[in-house]
Amino acid sequence: MPRYALLVEYDGGPFSGWQRQADQPSVQGAIEAALARLEPRDHTIAAAGRTDAGVHARGQVAHCDMAKDWDPFRLSEALNYHLKPAPVAIRACAAVDDDWHARFSALERRYLFRLLVRRAPATLEAGQVWRVMNPLDLGAMRAGAAHLIGLHDFTTFRSTMCQAASPVKTLDEIRIEQVETGAGTEFHFSLRARSFLHNQVRSIVGTLERVGAGSWAPGDVKTALEACDRAACGPVCPPQGLYLMGVGYPEAVFG
Amino acid sequence: MPRYALLVEYDGGPFSGWQRQADQPSVQGAIEAALARLEPRDHTIAAAGRTDAGVHARGQVAHCDMAKDWDPFRLSEALNYHLKPAPVAIRACAAVDDDWHARFSALERRYLFRLLVRRAPATLEAGQVWRVMNPLDLGAMRAGAAHLIGLHDFTTFRSTMCQAASPVKTLDEIRIEQVETGAGTEFHFSLRARSFLHNQVRSIVGTLERVGAGSWAPGDVKTALEACDRAACGPVCPPQGLYLMGVGYPEAVFG
Repeated sequence: MPRYALLVEYDGGPFSGWQRQADQPSVQGAIEAALARLEPRDHTIAAAGRTDAGVHARGQVAHCDMAKDWDPFRLSEALNYHLKPAPVAIRACAAVDDDWHARFSALERRYLFRLLVRRAPATLEAGQVWRVMNPLDLGAMRAGAAHLIGLHDFTTFRSTMCQAASPVKTLDEIRIEQVETGAGTEFHFSLRARSFLHNQVRSIVGTLERVGAGSWAPGDVKTALEACDRAACGPVCPPQGLYLMGVGYPEAVFG
Repeated sequence: MPRYALLVEYDGGPFSGWQRQADQPSVQGAIEAALARLEPRDHTIAAAGRTDAGVHARGQVAHCDMAKDWDPFRLSEALNYHLKPAPVAIRACAAVDDDWHARFSALERRYLFRLLVRRAPATLEAGQVWRVMNPLDLGAMRAGAAHLIGLHDFTTFRSTMCQAASPVKTLDEIRIEQVETGAGTEFHFSLRARSFLHNQVRSIVGTLERVGAGSWAPGDVKTALEACDRAACGPVCPPQGLYLMGVGYPEAVFG
């Protein structure tokens, strides 16, 4: 069966997450239902990152197996037609080898977290940022983040529900930028790693926000990391500021 | 009665527009209802720009008259509390003189129109951009726009419903920028004038899009303008890419 890689964008707001669940709207379920309009049967697709409820994607990658040979452009157009009005879009589609796998072939995941600092509630950005009212110290957050770069046991920064075999991961990058937007001051946290533990990004950003607010010192992040104890983590921040931005593979998939 | 200026942001999606209407949700109605929670009586507020259904604002300005003396910061906080969960926020509040008027004191309005060029439907930007599938020529659109700068009879570019006394207006600026965003290529049209006719921005952007697509030559914009005939206008573009960004007054109002 010919296999196709899909570059997927979605607003996670209306979904219980990526993963198909009985009686709950999911991104996976929406795409599988659209595939069933093209080739009527059960479809099961795999994705690079199983995002939680409320988490968005600019560059999720999934793959599907089709019975017919499809022109990749026509397949993406047909899926977008059947996905309407769900806020899910196929941005690109490419034929891949049978042994290529959206999840297992991935070498890198990139996430963005958007935090908006202002008194007034978010309106146009509602559901797309985490809004915080206290000012944040960029330098302190960067100093705190520096302790997390590299190979560590991230037990402190993973959900107790996490199913990964090991809490030891390499975090390649945390970049924090202050950006002035139409809505006010945003802080953008960009994280990059081969793979992430469950709730790892939200645990890290929630902890760094406490550093920015001044209630944690930057060095407290190191202490928390070395404790290897979930109870040492700062508050886990809400999902709606989180975006899966892209996935890296050994060779470029979408040209 | 002490008068207060309000800097207002909103997502125009759920509203029939700024203006209060019987049995229709409006931004004006939402703010007046919040004011009635603070001082129980009928309130009538005035705004610099009466935006249409689906049009957003980053920097709408309105004013209200209160019976009591309010600390401006506390007034904005109380209004934001009572506005929830409507996507309307008071970004700033300031005490102004009794003869200051949000509409009649205004010297300048600034609008932004966001146009997203891509094949895939918008997801995270749904309702906040006009999505167009054909590529657009930035230079051609700028050349077309140049014909509209200055003092003109804008009969071609105003709605037949427009109630302004005269179609003669001075357009101070149309700036068009190409911006690469997470969603793809956007074109941002920034327009500035003392005041605008009804549907003027959407008539201009809809016409310039035709120039960018190549179905109009830039010089056709001049011909259309000089025709002083509504029938000579290009298609009026949809409201959801339009934002009232700010209003200028003789003196800065919000510090």
